[in-house]
Amino acid sequence: MKRLSCVALLFAVVAAPFLVHADEGMWTFNLFPSDVVAKKYGFKPTQAWLDRVRLGSARLAEGCSGSFVSPDGLVMTNHHCAHNCIAQLSTAKKDLSKDGFFARTLADEPRCPTMEVDRLTDIRDVTKDVQGATQGLQGEAFEDAQRAVFAKLEAACATRDDLRCEVVTLYQGGRYDLYTYERMQDVRLVFAPETDIAAFGGDPDNFEFPRYDLDVSFMRVYRDGKPARTEPYFRWSKEGPKEGAVTFVPGNPGSTSRMDTLAQLAYQRDHSLPENLFWRSELRGRLQEFARRGPEFARMSEERLFGLENGLKSMKGGREALVEPAFWAHLSDNERALRAKVGQDAKLQQQYGDAWDATAKAMDTLKTFRRELRMLEQNAGMGSQLFDVAATLVRATEEAGKPNEQRLPEFTDANRPATEQFLFSPAPVYPELEELVLGFYLTRLREDLSPDHPAVKAVLGTDSPGVVAKRAVRGSQLKTVAVRKKLLAGGPAAIAASKDPMVVLARTLDGPARAVRKRYENEVVAVLKRNGERIGHARFALYGTSVAPDATFTPRLSYGSVQGYTADGKQVAPFTTVAGLYPRATGQEPFKLPPSWLRAKAKLPPETPLNFVTSNDIVGGNSGSPILDAQAEIVGLAFDGNIQSLGGNYGFDAAVNRTVAVDSRAIEAALRQVYGAERLLKELGLSTP
Amino acid sequence: MKRLSCVALLFAVVAAPFLVHADEGMWTFNLFPSDVVAKKYGFKPTQAWLDRVRLGSARLAEGCSGSFVSPDGLVMTNHHCAHNCIAQLSTAKKDLSKDGFFARTLADEPRCPTMEVDRLTDIRDVTKDVQGATQGLQGEAFEDAQRAVFAKLEAACATRDDLRCEVVTLYQGGRYDLYTYERMQDVRLVFAPETDIAAFGGDPDNFEFPRYDLDVSFMRVYRDGKPARTEPYFRWSKEGPKEGAVTFVPGNPGSTSRMDTLAQLAYQRDHSLPENLFWRSELRGRLQEFARRGPEFARMSEERLFGLENGLKSMKGGREALVEPAFWAHLSDNERALRAKVGQDAKLQQQYGDAWDATAKAMDTLKTFRRELRMLEQNAGMGSQLFDVAATLVRATEEAGKPNEQRLPEFTDANRPATEQFLFSPAPVYPELEELVLGFYLTRLREDLSPDHPAVKAVLGTDSPGVVAKRAVRGSQLKTVAVRKKLLAGGPAAIAASKDPMVVLARTLDGPARAVRKRYENEVVAVLKRNGERIGHARFALYGTSVAPDATFTPRLSYGSVQGYTADGKQVAPFTTVAGLYPRATGQEPFKLPPSWLRAKAKLPPETPLNFVTSNDIVGGNSGSPILDAQAEIVGLAFDGNIQSLGGNYGFDAAVNRTVAVDSRAIEAALRQVYGAERLLKELGLSTP
Repeated sequence: MKRLSCVALLFAVVAAPFLVHADEGMWTFNLFPSDVVAKKYGFKPTQAWLDRVRLGSARLAEGCSGSFVSPDGLVMTNHHCAHNCIAQLSTAKKDLSKDGFFARTLADEPRCPTMEVDRLTDIRDVTKDVQGATQGLQGEAFEDAQRAVFAKLEAACATRDDLRCEVVTLYQGGRYDLYTYERMQDVRLVFAPETDIAAFGGDPDNFEFPRYDLDVSFMRVYRDGKPARTEPYFRWSKEGPKEGAVTFVPGNPGSTSRMDTLAQLAYQRDHSLPENLFWRSELRGRLQEFARRGPEFARMSEERLFGLENGLKSMKGGREALVEPAFWAHLSDNERALRAKVGQDAKLQQQYGDAWDATAKAMDTLKTFRRELRMLEQNAGMGSQLFDVAATLVRATEEAGKPNEQRLPEFTDANRPATEQFLFSPAPVYPELEELVLGFYLTRLREDLSPDHPAVKAVLGTDSPGVVAKRAVRGSQLKTVAVRKKLLAGGPAAIAASKDPMVVLARTLDGPARAVRKRYENEVVAVLKRNGERIGHARFALYGTSVAPDATFTPRLSYGSVQGYTADGKQVAPFTTVAGLYPRATGQEPFKLPPSWLRAKAKLPPETPLNFVTSNDIVGGNSGSPILDAQAEIVGLAFDGNIQSLGGNYGFDAAVNRTVAVDSRAIEAALRQVYGAERLLKELGLSTP
Repeated sequence: MKRLSCVALLFAVVAAPFLVHADEGMWTFNLFPSDVVAKKYGFKPTQAWLDRVRLGSARLAEGCSGSFVSPDGLVMTNHHCAHNCIAQLSTAKKDLSKDGFFARTLADEPRCPTMEVDRLTDIRDVTKDVQGATQGLQGEAFEDAQRAVFAKLEAACATRDDLRCEVVTLYQGGRYDLYTYERMQDVRLVFAPETDIAAFGGDPDNFEFPRYDLDVSFMRVYRDGKPARTEPYFRWSKEGPKEGAVTFVPGNPGSTSRMDTLAQLAYQRDHSLPENLFWRSELRGRLQEFARRGPEFARMSEERLFGLENGLKSMKGGREALVEPAFWAHLSDNERALRAKVGQDAKLQQQYGDAWDATAKAMDTLKTFRRELRMLEQNAGMGSQLFDVAATLVRATEEAGKPNEQRLPEFTDANRPATEQFLFSPAPVYPELEELVLGFYLTRLREDLSPDHPAVKAVLGTDSPGVVAKRAVRGSQLKTVAVRKKLLAGGPAAIAASKDPMVVLARTLDGPARAVRKRYENEVVAVLKRNGERIGHARFALYGTSVAPDATFTPRLSYGSVQGYTADGKQVAPFTTVAGLYPRATGQEPFKLPPSWLRAKAKLPPETPLNFVTSNDIVGGNSGSPILDAQAEIVGLAFDGNIQSLGGNYGFDAAVNRTVAVDSRAIEAALRQVYGAERLLKELGLSTP
């Protein structure tokens, strides 16, 4: 299961492709290599076909992908992509995660508190505008100018709240495109199976194959209180996936670093990945022990734990790829080859030759304040909902007073709908869980910055982290949405006057956090952007655009085919079937089948294909992507990569990197035999035979 | 605070020195560089002086150091070295960790359940015996022959239970010495301050300086129920430490890897350190959340958490040193220089030239089964006491049936007293804590080896880790020492017949654990030993014995002087005083002073020196070492290293690596003004003025 944290995105840094393997690449819809596909698979996607696939695909703003599967707003994605909504709609008495959910009628479809579904309607090349605005600038001046031109272009485009406009940096700034999305914030839950079958095998089986999961859910987008019209949409394949057949995966891969310099990758390997893994492992331990207190504690922490464990396993896999000597040698060789080529051309050398060293220097600078950056800005609050709300209120009110083009990017006019949806979400807040998370954050803040750091002293005074967390959580009125609205409306004066202990905490940390962010942007990000752009230009000059840009959580399309692979000397077949599921069920979490599946055992033909793998190149963020055949019909639903795919952030190994998907025939069989979801089958064009 | 895990020792692998800085080296008492010291400090230790210092020093078998400070068995060590005993003697109603302890009379000194104090009485060179026995052998044959000759030499020496005999591998096998210790297992607690002052600043201040801790405790060794006679012993200095004066630190540094090959160090950097940090971080999170349930839960988990956090901080520091490019380049340069010198001499090249590649190959092999080794053998049970008891019973009974020379080293006759002390310890067992730890272990076992691993299937069957852990802990009779004694006496038949669920669990895991250990010993350890020995010989041939051997948790002596250092551009003074302590006390853990210190504030002169730093080269295991002046009088008590010392496992940076110690004057002042410990002051020769 792959999911992309939006926090991570905020600090994603533009980077540089180095090598094309078979089927490698998460391609933009306007630069898709149809000729290459035609040559390899005998099918050449036309522009009309590409447009149809783009419009049938959905971007889930929280960090996933999906597809439109009926003309009436029906969206298919993964269960784990809808799980936040499922958890938010659950209570101690009615647990949709445990029991599953199916809305028998339209009227039974409940609204998700914080879901947003986008559809990419337009791509416009704005390279000249952006590069013109920053020409010759460096450091803070570069950052400010680029931020301003981004905000200006996005504001001019986002004329209505139901348009989402974003300037996308491709090829490290070799190209800038303005993406316009249709934004849909009224998203309702239609169908979700029980977590026990959706995530059968849990964390132990996550990122593994063979696999036996029904990781699917259906939601519906509404407009003006009615199901939205969504055309074009994808139809269901009559036949399902076939070994060797071409497959396409549209979706929103989160971010990759395949074009990063070695200095950037070494920072990932030596600092960013392990150090994030340390605190996340510790938080996992806290949450696991919290969950052991009883079923309601387990329910409260389930969603948080799930996301944390998913990220942990994914980051561990990425780190292991980077410390593998052969993998690292491959990356080194590529950088060395590119630098050598640049060195052989006097003009290129003069223009771009020092870009790599500049990057390395920026990473050395970053090392000296990475702890402050991580603790005060990138992971402030470590996921405490109330802290996030407070911190967002503090910044949103302050930023609102500035001209749009000078604001932090997440508070520009174009991003207001997303901010408001977050702030005004009626999702439940669990004080016990909040206390744990915030207490943990403050403990780590003191540990990583030292008890003598001014920000730590300002926040803790003479109190312990646990006491400060308890006071802030118990005493805060931010659990009530009306209070948040009032504070937002009241602006900086209301924030300054607030005695709410959570607001006070966020306010106290905001200054130091802004300071370290500014330092990061000016001394690191600006350098990486500027030199990434230069390396990108060098690469363009030498290699052209024959490689896909790094992923940026924007719509992409990958091609491949259904195929097994060899691991530890053994051939892994591309399909699993229902016959393999039941013997694996021990009756204990996470290998426990829900009652519905135990009851349906006799009705489900054992030979029904359940999961399968393809050679498509995807990464986190692609969760929920449909697997399409050449007719652009649905043959599956991507929900994971195998363990060998976890190096995909840095490179693509065509021999073993695999997309893991639910077979379309398994979804149909389950809806029919396990859930009797006639209404849904009918809408999918799968009426009972 | 530094502590050495004995589990770590069991698998410590012999390694190779590369460079001598000022004051570098943890020297053996029979190869001490007195001339170098004389040249630098104007004082030349004689052999008589060295013998006296050796005999005045103590080795605490659990992993610490200490000193004899009266003729009547009085031992001084750190509070954190006695903390295991302090915790074991505590109950929910009488918490010696919180309240401190002072035995007003001899009769009030309670016995520590698992403490052992050793004094090194003899060193004999057995190089010829050992090297003769393994000559020309490789792999399993080498391992078996070396094990047999070790066991034979040790058995011949350990003629009584109160003798501890160990063959010590020095200079990677360039030299083998047989060490004979006087073994004292009746150890009683005399004095311990409250943890709040002993470990003031807790984990945040651990490995930091400036520092304000009274990390001291006094114990007494008994023989035949009476205080043991301990001569020679160290007398208290009248004047205390002085800036610039020479200092000596005798003690038992745990293990260092300064002579490891780059391949071994890369394994540490990329796998061993980070991967151990991941699970330890997670366990820390579990324990922290466990402690949050209430004061008694906090008390039960205090000792475990303390050790875990200490190790985490130390391992993090070690990892950071290894990923520092300049540090790594230094290590690489040294290996390259040595290999180049070997390469320039045809004979050396032929004899030793391929040793480095052989080591690298062994590490590559280890990578392929490192998870099994870690989970099944090195960290089996992850510290569950009952599991350790069960696993020890399973092995001890089986090994007892073999000839002494063919047993696993920890079960030879020479080691029987230590095994029995562990098995028959009346230390309390907390079922809630045991369930947490064992449940965590089984969860990680499944996660790291996969649910499909035969050992995982055998242990879990169709149950969850939590269920298996609960059953094993709740159902086990091993909480009772009599049951353990009976099983041990009953031998393999009793173990095989046992239905005790903890014994069943340990029995189930023993086979796979032995198998992976055997593989490790034959395919990795034997190769590292053999080639380490070869590299050692090459080094001897080129550099002689002008460097100290790597640390091996055996008695060593380091020299240095009281001196500050520069960190982040600022000069750090070598002393702290009581004046700095009180303003740092917030009243909240871990910056809370005990009531006794709050009461004594007016009586303690603010200018009383509290902690200080010296340039002595020490590492974990040296905790509790006395700091001696040229008269071999006590001027302080080592309890930590600064944060810059954490790379000390791999190299010594004389500019910033510092030993952190309690000033002898602070100990005296506290005993007098805070605790009124007249009996103790008198015994130390510090009668009231």
